[in-house]
Amino acid sequence: MKINCNVIQFHKTGELDVLNMENVTIEDPVNDEVLFKVDAFALNRADVLHYQGFHTTLPTFPARIGSEATGEVIKVGNKVTDFKVGDRVTSIPFNTSKYGVQGEYAIVPQDYLSKAPKNLTVEEACSIWMQYSTAYFALFHVGSVKKGDYVFIPAISSSAGYGCFELAREVGAIAIGSTRSSTKKEELKRLGINDLIITNEESVEKRLKEITNGEGVSFVYDPVAGSFIHEYLDSLSMGAVVIIYGLLDPNPTPYPLVPLIRKKAIMDAYSQFNHVEDINKLNECKSYILDRIEKGALKPIVSKVFDFNDYKKAYEYMLSNQQVGKIVVRVNNK
Amino acid sequence: MKINCNVIQFHKTGELDVLNMENVTIEDPVNDEVLFKVDAFALNRADVLHYQGFHTTLPTFPARIGSEATGEVIKVGNKVTDFKVGDRVTSIPFNTSKYGVQGEYAIVPQDYLSKAPKNLTVEEACSIWMQYSTAYFALFHVGSVKKGDYVFIPAISSSAGYGCFELAREVGAIAIGSTRSSTKKEELKRLGINDLIITNEESVEKRLKEITNGEGVSFVYDPVAGSFIHEYLDSLSMGAVVIIYGLLDPNPTPYPLVPLIRKKAIMDAYSQFNHVEDINKLNECKSYILDRIEKGALKPIVSKVFDFNDYKKAYEYMLSNQQVGKIVVRVNNK
Repeated sequence: MKINCNVIQFHKTGELDVLNMENVTIEDPVNDEVLFKVDAFALNRADVLHYQGFHTTLPTFPARIGSEATGEVIKVGNKVTDFKVGDRVTSIPFNTSKYGVQGEYAIVPQDYLSKAPKNLTVEEACSIWMQYSTAYFALFHVGSVKKGDYVFIPAISSSAGYGCFELAREVGAIAIGSTRSSTKKEELKRLGINDLIITNEESVEKRLKEITNGEGVSFVYDPVAGSFIHEYLDSLSMGAVVIIYGLLDPNPTPYPLVPLIRKKAIMDAYSQFNHVEDINKLNECKSYILDRIEKGALKPIVSKVFDFNDYKKAYEYMLSNQQVGKIVVRVNNK
Repeated sequence: MKINCNVIQFHKTGELDVLNMENVTIEDPVNDEVLFKVDAFALNRADVLHYQGFHTTLPTFPARIGSEATGEVIKVGNKVTDFKVGDRVTSIPFNTSKYGVQGEYAIVPQDYLSKAPKNLTVEEACSIWMQYSTAYFALFHVGSVKKGDYVFIPAISSSAGYGCFELAREVGAIAIGSTRSSTKKEELKRLGINDLIITNEESVEKRLKEITNGEGVSFVYDPVAGSFIHEYLDSLSMGAVVIIYGLLDPNPTPYPLVPLIRKKAIMDAYSQFNHVEDINKLNECKSYILDRIEKGALKPIVSKVFDFNDYKKAYEYMLSNQQVGKIVVRVNNK
């Protein structure tokens, strides 16, 4: 069974125009691979870095793109034990230059799939894993965030930031978010983010000290980095963990040796890719997240949904930084 | 019993001229404090950073200086259990803005003293703890260096570098050193450093790949940092640990997020101060090091000895970077 279908591909790295919708033939899944018909996929900053050639994973051409999609299993490889034809699945990002899910069909090894939670819409179901697995390993494996801890989440309007907020709240930690301008303020307040710093208007250091009563934050989940790190380094508590998982600030990120030593702090160069490759850890994460989604404690925010033909508009929307939560592309309108 | 004696002090931060030999009155030791008559003390880069005001420990004025000295116990506080009058002791660097040992007499809390090893000279005995405790916690607590591991030691001619070389060799790791010019090459070869990179003449990356047969280094013990880190980042093996414990390179040190993520590497902002404050860890370190000194497996290199009146020449010699090993000031010529 060979399938002809449309997928998003690129043949060289560059800006958004390197992406094309192309007709390809998809071979049968082999071994631990699962083939599924995609209903919707989500965009991530990692996808932008991928087509630009700046991601930790370098593409091999022609390169498919995307790591989060949901849909129905069509066929499975002979070593697949966890899924069968007809199952509704959703994919988990991992370090691969082979698999990409943005298209009408996708193949993913079974370890990097989960069942699609029944209480989520199709758009929500493809918006789980990047945000929650990234936050999970950062909060609980690199850090050990627990009840009462102060957690600082720059760029909290991103899906990654909001996912971390939900997971931190769920264990009783006190999450403090930041966002650049007051544009998204009302929406973020409505989402329950009470401690919010508007970085263009307020001193991050002063506000963090106020909110934490001088105690400082013990965990930072930072996709901004660059010169922004100087705004919070003095507000760390002793033994703090600083997760750097992105470089949204275009300025170089300095290595703050003395501030880190003074606070006995750890700065971790973080990617969930380096954690999900350990299948035991990955399975622990899957259970943890699926359990809390089922209970309603976690629920992804979908910012906007685009049609498959408008996938470039979806990317442009991401690049415009207007979203709060996930940008999703709907493939089959079943 | 009050003692009048000469000590090195400073009243403001600045360059070397802020240091003065001053006559002071030393009060009796109290509680866990031990008073000892200093025979010799050693200089460290940390002392330079201390009088410059750049060290992680900030001075309170008038500030004594220095963390490594050896001598004979004169009097002990009422809670001292480990030492008695007449014992020969040597001091261990820790995070303090109160105690300093460069002078005719010094007071140090008993936890931060050890017996002076009998098989070492006075000059060697004050040259133990900064180099070996710094290397010990880096190699075995932050890292887990073991037999067969490739360890890269920039600035290997420093006492810290050579101390790490000895400890790494002792567990069977393969230590690769670097030094800026060929000036110290012969002396370093004579000390047993067979794999030596001259950074002004050779490509660090190329040589590391050659020496490790393409495997890369799993541990870096770097007091240089700055732009120098780019010379070895591509030569790390997966899961490498990079210890940054100094900033000898005057250029800013960038935080290399993507290279670290690609290698699953950890970059640790390191000071032994953050380890010796745990008394159990400190005691483990003391036993480990003293045992190996007794067996002759570790032996500090003394580069040059100065008279107490020439202490500024000793500092100038350190600033000139000519030394291989420790710079020591002899106080009493008994």
